Amino acid sequence: MANATYADNKSFVLRGIEDVVFEERPVPEIGPQDVLVEVKKTGICGSDVHYLVHGRIGDFIVENPMVLGHESAGIIHSVGSKVKHLKPGARVAIEPGATCRICGPCKHGKYNLCADIEFAATPPYDGTLTRYYRVPADLAYELPENLSLEDGAMMEPLSVGIHSVSTLAQVKANQNVAVFGAGPVGLLSMAVAKALGARRVIAIDIQQSRLDFAKSYSATDIFMPGKMQEGETKMAYSRRTAQAMKDQLKLADAGPDGVDVIIEASGAEVCIQMGYWLAKAGGTFVQVGMGTPDVQIPITMILVKELTLKGSFRYGPGDYALAIALVAQNKIDLKPLVTHRFKFEDAKQAFETTRKGRSEDGVGVIKAIISGPE
Amino acid sequence: MANATYADNKSFVLRGIEDVVFEERPVPEIGPQDVLVEVKKTGICGSDVHYLVHGRIGDFIVENPMVLGHESAGIIHSVGSKVKHLKPGARVAIEPGATCRICGPCKHGKYNLCADIEFAATPPYDGTLTRYYRVPADLAYELPENLSLEDGAMMEPLSVGIHSVSTLAQVKANQNVAVFGAGPVGLLSMAVAKALGARRVIAIDIQQSRLDFAKSYSATDIFMPGKMQEGETKMAYSRRTAQAMKDQLKLADAGPDGVDVIIEASGAEVCIQMGYWLAKAGGTFVQVGMGTPDVQIPITMILVKELTLKGSFRYGPGDYALAIALVAQNKIDLKPLVTHRFKFEDAKQAFETTRKGRSEDGVGVIKAIISGPE
Amino acid sequence: MANATYADNKSFVLRGIEDVVFEERPVPEIGPQDVLVEVKKTGICGSDVHYLVHGRIGDFIVENPMVLGHESAGIIHSVGSKVKHLKPGARVAIEPGATCRICGPCKHGKYNLCADIEFAATPPYDGTLTRYYRVPADLAYELPENLSLEDGAMMEPLSVGIHSVSTLAQVKANQNVAVFGAGPVGLLSMAVAKALGARRVIAIDIQQSRLDFAKSYSATDIFMPGKMQEGETKMAYSRRTAQAMKDQLKLADAGPDGVDVIIEASGAEVCIQMGYWLAKAGGTFVQVGMGTPDVQIPITMILVKELTLKGSFRYGPGDYALAIALVAQNKIDLKPLVTHRFKFEDAKQAFETTRKGRSEDGVGVIKAIISGPE
Amino acid sequence: MANATYADNKSFVLRGIEDVVFEERPVPEIGPQDVLVEVKKTGICGSDVHYLVHGRIGDFIVENPMVLGHESAGIIHSVGSKVKHLKPGARVAIEPGATCRICGPCKHGKYNLCADIEFAATPPYDGTLTRYYRVPADLAYELPENLSLEDGAMMEPLSVGIHSVSTLAQVKANQNVAVFGAGPVGLLSMAVAKALGARRVIAIDIQQSRLDFAKSYSATDIFMPGKMQEGETKMAYSRRTAQAMKDQLKLADAGPDGVDVIIEASGAEVCIQMGYWLAKAGGTFVQVGMGTPDVQIPITMILVKELTLKGSFRYGPGDYALAIALVAQNKIDLKPLVTHRFKFEDAKQAFETTRKGRSEDGVGVIKAIISGPE
Repeated sequence: MANATYADNKSFVLRGIEDVVFEERPVPEIGPQDVLVEVKKTGICGSDVHYLVHGRIGDFIVENPMVLGHESAGIIHSVGSKVKHLKPGARVAIEPGATCRICGPCKHGKYNLCADIEFAATPPYDGTLTRYYRVPADLAYELPENLSLEDGAMMEPLSVGIHSVSTLAQVKANQNVAVFGAGPVGLLSMAVAKALGARRVIAIDIQQSRLDFAKSYSATDIFMPGKMQEGETKMAYSRRTAQAMKDQLKLADAGPDGVDVIIEASGAEVCIQMGYWLAKAGGTFVQVGMGTPDVQIPITMILVKELTLKGSFRYGPGDYALAIALVAQNKIDLKPLVTHRFKFEDAKQAFETTRKGRSEDGVGVIKAIISGPE
Repeated sequence: MANATYADNKSFVLRGIEDVVFEERPVPEIGPQDVLVEVKKTGICGSDVHYLVHGRIGDFIVENPMVLGHESAGIIHSVGSKVKHLKPGARVAIEPGATCRICGPCKHGKYNLCADIEFAATPPYDGTLTRYYRVPADLAYELPENLSLEDGAMMEPLSVGIHSVSTLAQVKANQNVAVFGAGPVGLLSMAVAKALGARRVIAIDIQQSRLDFAKSYSATDIFMPGKMQEGETKMAYSRRTAQAMKDQLKLADAGPDGVDVIIEASGAEVCIQMGYWLAKAGGTFVQVGMGTPDVQIPITMILVKELTLKGSFRYGPGDYALAIALVAQNKIDLKPLVTHRFKFEDAKQAFETTRKGRSEDGVGVIKAIISGPE
Repeated sequence: MANATYADNKSFVLRGIEDVVFEERPVPEIGPQDVLVEVKKTGICGSDVHYLVHGRIGDFIVENPMVLGHESAGIIHSVGSKVKHLKPGARVAIEPGATCRICGPCKHGKYNLCADIEFAATPPYDGTLTRYYRVPADLAYELPENLSLEDGAMMEPLSVGIHSVSTLAQVKANQNVAVFGAGPVGLLSMAVAKALGARRVIAIDIQQSRLDFAKSYSATDIFMPGKMQEGETKMAYSRRTAQAMKDQLKLADAGPDGVDVIIEASGAEVCIQMGYWLAKAGGTFVQVGMGTPDVQIPITMILVKELTLKGSFRYGPGDYALAIALVAQNKIDLKPLVTHRFKFEDAKQAFETTRKGRSEDGVGVIKAIISGPE
Repeated sequence: MANATYADNKSFVLRGIEDVVFEERPVPEIGPQDVLVEVKKTGICGSDVHYLVHGRIGDFIVENPMVLGHESAGIIHSVGSKVKHLKPGARVAIEPGATCRICGPCKHGKYNLCADIEFAATPPYDGTLTRYYRVPADLAYELPENLSLEDGAMMEPLSVGIHSVSTLAQVKANQNVAVFGAGPVGLLSMAVAKALGARRVIAIDIQQSRLDFAKSYSATDIFMPGKMQEGETKMAYSRRTAQAMKDQLKLADAGPDGVDVIIEASGAEVCIQMGYWLAKAGGTFVQVGMGTPDVQIPITMILVKELTLKGSFRYGPGDYALAIALVAQNKIDLKPLVTHRFKFEDAKQAFETTRKGRSEDGVGVIKAIISGPE
């Protein structure tokens, strides 16, 4: 490391609501088990945009300037003295949450529940839209040759899908899986379900263009909910619509033609409700979409069908590794999801485009990627 | 069976809302794998009362006269030709749901989800408030000598607790368990949690007398929620009250002092909400109480704490056997729960008393038991 | 059923060691939940040959004449009065073990452990090499259009692979699986592992031709153990050979390059031993091959690597359905395994060829199939 | 820590086979997450004696002088700068294996499989028979007031029992558990089984005095195997003896009267064999005793009964905490197991007594405890 040279450490910093600037930040010092990564590709996540627009997500409030970004890949610049499996120059995907390793969840294999996690771009921790990012070496995953750095940046949202569909829902071959929401996490959840051998992967969304893309990508079936009728409650609507969906797609309440697994990636109340009406007896429902904090649910359905509901938060042990493996084995193709690319100095425009959901040429945003500083 | 003699088959029949009569019914014929039980003790369940008052529970509607009752024990009158493990005269607890044994749930060890289950006193199937009740022999469990026929009748609600606390929540030694609702199912859930080695068993209820009983019975801690403030939403109230409970009982959000398992046996919306605020990260929430069909929940809590929620419906393989064993081993005492006893001809009065929740002498009803016809 | 016509019920019967004849047997009567199947295709299993040669397998002794065969598919001839999902003419695979449905294992989802199972061609129960075979309707699985009756007969050995690899070992995407023995069950286990998304599927066998076939079929890697050295114990040999295999195939003792799952389908002592040396720490070992009843194992390996070992016996709930689905979805191709075909009247020759392992034209037997009587 | 004063760091060191001395060792320096413990009580384990007598256990060879001992409790002398939950003076049990926290097993909740574990008194790592021992703070468990320091030292072997009986075998209420070997680990496994609600806890041993103690301690039943007959193979003997045990204790091959769980804590070949003959269909067998490295087993029993076998190695996340809790809740009493006590300077005599299995006054050794240096 004696000969390592550093350029500036240019970073994209959120100072407050709608207030972002480029700043020089000190280059992080690394410990013996750390690596320093030159960040090359960073995807924009809905949460990044949410912090920009609202300055907070729930109880996480941006009180001091914070570097944005947490979906990144890059090249190893230098490694700590005890790091053996990585060398400078290696291309890596970054898992952006450093955990304490000594608490109960960390030791029991659920480190995503670590109360002391330092997660990139979650206040007060800086994110990855910077030139040099420090990360514990075991959270930097070397990319196989057939994966690009953009693929590497996509490992973060893909790991969210892996965690929901594989680790929590434990989707198995020949199961039927319904995914609400055809945004990045929904689409990646569909891709994971397909890669794990699901028989039917059903996309539900309210935009036809998103459904069309889902069908071309990894869904076997699509469903567009109809309109709510005048005077109809959300609950009546969701029940009626779930039944319409069952009729249209020939889904049963039980047995091999039922929906074994629901992945709720929209966070919308009526979708959550629909999921409970839709699931087959004994089915599993994983909530990964975060939207309205309080929602009304048909709890009797959970009871009489003995559903299992699990909340999905980020990703845990093994999720990144499986994400990379499935892409390397060509079971998941990430390339169609990267719809927009920006230079580091155009980061503001990247956020603006993501926020609008569409660039000026009319192309819908699935995932926008910002390159590292030159 | 040639010499078997039958008395009349007097039965307590619901003809419509608030309309019950005693009727003679034909003695059931038994098949080679069945037994005929002379019913001796039957507990009254909230669902029996609900059918009496409303004529329906959800989609189950009483359209034809139906014998009430499903919590029963009795004495074997006669056995089918292939029955080996039971003889006339044996005292048995009756598991009151005969299943098809050929569907997916039946074959996968989840027979309580059998769509063709014939469950006593769930329309259109007759119940057990009758002299002679036919049941498949494997659903008649011989009672150990140290158990009474009243204990036998209590196996039905106890099995609901076993299913929720043992089979679904899988409560383990040294876990902390909170139970909402100190009615029969709540109290039995507490007793099961204690028998399985729970460290703290916390009862939550809004009646001090019920909490006092819970404390004397199997709870280690009790909590009485405070009043809702003017203008306060249910969600704000439940969050504030859960926090007050954590403070008062020194419960943490994580680790060994957190609440590992919630058993929701009240069905009340604010209790369900409180449970989500209360559970520790990674905790389990079992919904067994059936109340309002639609409830608002703080879904973000499920997400960020990665809670697991399971619906609990009746009981499945092994639940009755474990229920009997725990009582036989003196780990659960059912006697304190039987507060009222009635003769068969006083069945109407038994229902009336259960409905009021209190007999004329002021004694609160936990469980009223009706003896079989003399 | 009034118009149903029956031909004779010609059957292939084992009377004693090396003594088989064709016999007319009465056409079975069916109960309300049964179907009568005209058997069209039957595979020969090693156990059939074993009964022919030895008259027994372990404690199962052929004391009375017994129809052979249990790997069968056919066409529904008639159905019982309560059967709804099947009609005469339907093409079905037969799951050849009728269970009691009332014992503990049956009710807990492990019916293959039913002590009262009536399994085809296991004494004293007759097998399926007959014109008409009665089976409970839920054990007759209708074949999708893209599956042949030969595929249907192959569902029996495929279900053994499903049970071992999916139900018991629970092989997941990206795991490495080693399969000892490249006979029918071993090959089908490899196919299942591949279908479930295994990264590497490693075949181990002592015949190069079998390894070559495995490689062309569903193995990603093959390994031929070397010779035992003079004076070497089996244990020393198996340890040395396992190490040689690790070196040759670059397998690690832990981590993503270790062997996650061993499927032992040979029953040979040195293979069983090799498996324990080979498995990675925390790995799973499923024993499905039945050979020498007593084998020496390196038990310290089980301890210090905390291996999990499971015995696999036949198949249970869901296994047949998954087997059919994976073939219907083109994830498993059964056709390459059917190497020999015989008419019913040539059944003896079929057994003789299977026993020799090779037909006169030099083609090695993987699976020989006998057609039903004409 | 500025005011901390240190005495000498006297240690009990194994230099080679049968060669132990007292040595002054440097006081360890602690890092920010470590604590320094003044060791007060240390139990002698069979492995300590084995190193003394043989200089090795399997591939672990004592090549340099090594401090012995790993079953210890003590008092916190000083704490690292980031340690919050412990203060000097606190009484703690020491979990004696520091793991890397970054490997796969560490992150997946199986840190006992960490390849880089630094385990006390396993070469080349020094043990706890020393005045000052450094340990990561999360591996020092504060003792509740009702536990003694001797109890604290006993947490190590108790955690081995917890790991085997609770974590791996997952013994549940009302199960029948058979434990082979009534030494410390066997007795503690029985105590754990009883604490978890086992119905029958059956001790098997070849010394009547040990069985008598087991019966007085936590076994409900005891069994003494008979003698091997002339010319009888071990396998024939173990089969015959298992059958004799089933007959004598009325144990079934299946159902509620079968043996659900075997804990093999003897390491003896015939015991291991007996366990396989004894277990009920679908049962679980945990191997925790380490004896002969290679043993012959009746593998057909594993197959046809679909047994699950697990190897148990040390202990993992949560095991120490549960061990302490069960003792604190008076569900396990450790005091009867401490049969002999020695001063630090009499450590050699303590080892000698443990090795002989009996002190000069004829009292059999279950556990001998050495106090810390004065």
